Amino acid sequence: MTNDERFARQVRFIVEIDKLKRVLRRTLLTDQSRRENSAEHSWHIALMAPILAEYAAEEVDVLRAMKMLLVHDLVEIDAGDTFAYDAAGHLDKEERERAAADRVFGLLPEDQASELRSLWNEFEESESPEARFALALDRLQPLLQNVHADGGTWRSHGVTREQVLERMSPIQQTSVFLWEYAVEAVETVWVKGMVRVIEDDGEH
Amino acid sequence: MTNDERFARQVRFIVEIDKLKRVLRRTLLTDQSRRENSAEHSWHIALMAPILAEYAAEEVDVLRAMKMLLVHDLVEIDAGDTFAYDAAGHLDKEERERAAADRVFGLLPEDQASELRSLWNEFEESESPEARFALALDRLQPLLQNVHADGGTWRSHGVTREQVLERMSPIQQTSVFLWEYAVEAVETVWVKGMVRVIEDDGEH
Repeated sequence: MTNDERFARQVRFIVEIDKLKRVLRRTLLTDQSRRENSAEHSWHIALMAPILAEYAAEEVDVLRAMKMLLVHDLVEIDAGDTFAYDAAGHLDKEERERAAADRVFGLLPEDQASELRSLWNEFEESESPEARFALALDRLQPLLQNVHADGGTWRSHGVTREQVLERMSPIQQTSVFLWEYAVEAVETVWVKGMVRVIEDDGEH
Repeated sequence: MTNDERFARQVRFIVEIDKLKRVLRRTLLTDQSRRENSAEHSWHIALMAPILAEYAAEEVDVLRAMKMLLVHDLVEIDAGDTFAYDAAGHLDKEERERAAADRVFGLLPEDQASELRSLWNEFEESESPEARFALALDRLQPLLQNVHADGGTWRSHGVTREQVLERMSPIQQTSVFLWEYAVEAVETVWVKGMVRVIEDDGEH
């Protein structure tokens, strides 16, 4: 591969991932003006990593976790965002996302494709302290966003408190402190009757 | 400061930075459906860092550059996005952004505020190889985005080719290869008469 061919593949990938900005999640911005997209969500949790790393029970390579968080949702360009509480959508989610990972990471030169794909696999499998920490942040961010939104339209999607706590449970793997916060936050939301979408973008 | 107070400040920062998702740049998404916001732009260039680091003339700590890119636009929450070619807006830009940095980073516990603020200063001053590389990516991304958009509405904002090249010139500090690409890309745009907004979000 010449330098030009290599660069052309890198550019193709960079231009392609722009599409993640058009994948909408169910979570709203804190001012509730619109739904959040997966690109800005990825930015948010990548930046949460250095702020909250001190709560991780296992030693975490923070910068590595950030890189993982930046790529963790790229498969949604093809596979879309699967609503956390959509049981039907989860049936073929894994297959759709694997095919998406093949295509999207495969745009890159082989060495780079392989590195980012491995990071994605590691995240999906919760294989490392970084992956477990990253997953906890992925769960915590929509919760923080929902709890701290200023009033507005709190809507029920028919999700139960138990479903939400089950969904949040990966936080427990990483940090007792963050988990206690999450449980209390969910409780507050329910007690106040502000049952709003507390969600995420699929199994990861 | 108790653990709870510390965590409360961290949460306040995390919730506050959600606002960057509402700061709009002039650049459009590649499908030209809407303007890009500064949060998703930050995600995009942070992810470009590991892909394009091999072209940097100086040795770059890629993960550190990524962290810098994730925070580089946070001041826009208060100071707004200043159009790259808006001379008037640039007059008090520095002052506005310094005040914004004081407030936004100041939400964090002191140790974290100081670390992220330093990274931001370093970027603003182009003080390190990471800062120079990060700045080049910040310039290159809107160019790539504009050049590779599929047709659509190419619009002139009365910006000259010389202004664009001047704007892109930090790329030259980091990489001859990327600079040659940028010059050629700008040339192509002009030759084809596709004079569209090629811009960025201020001095950085």
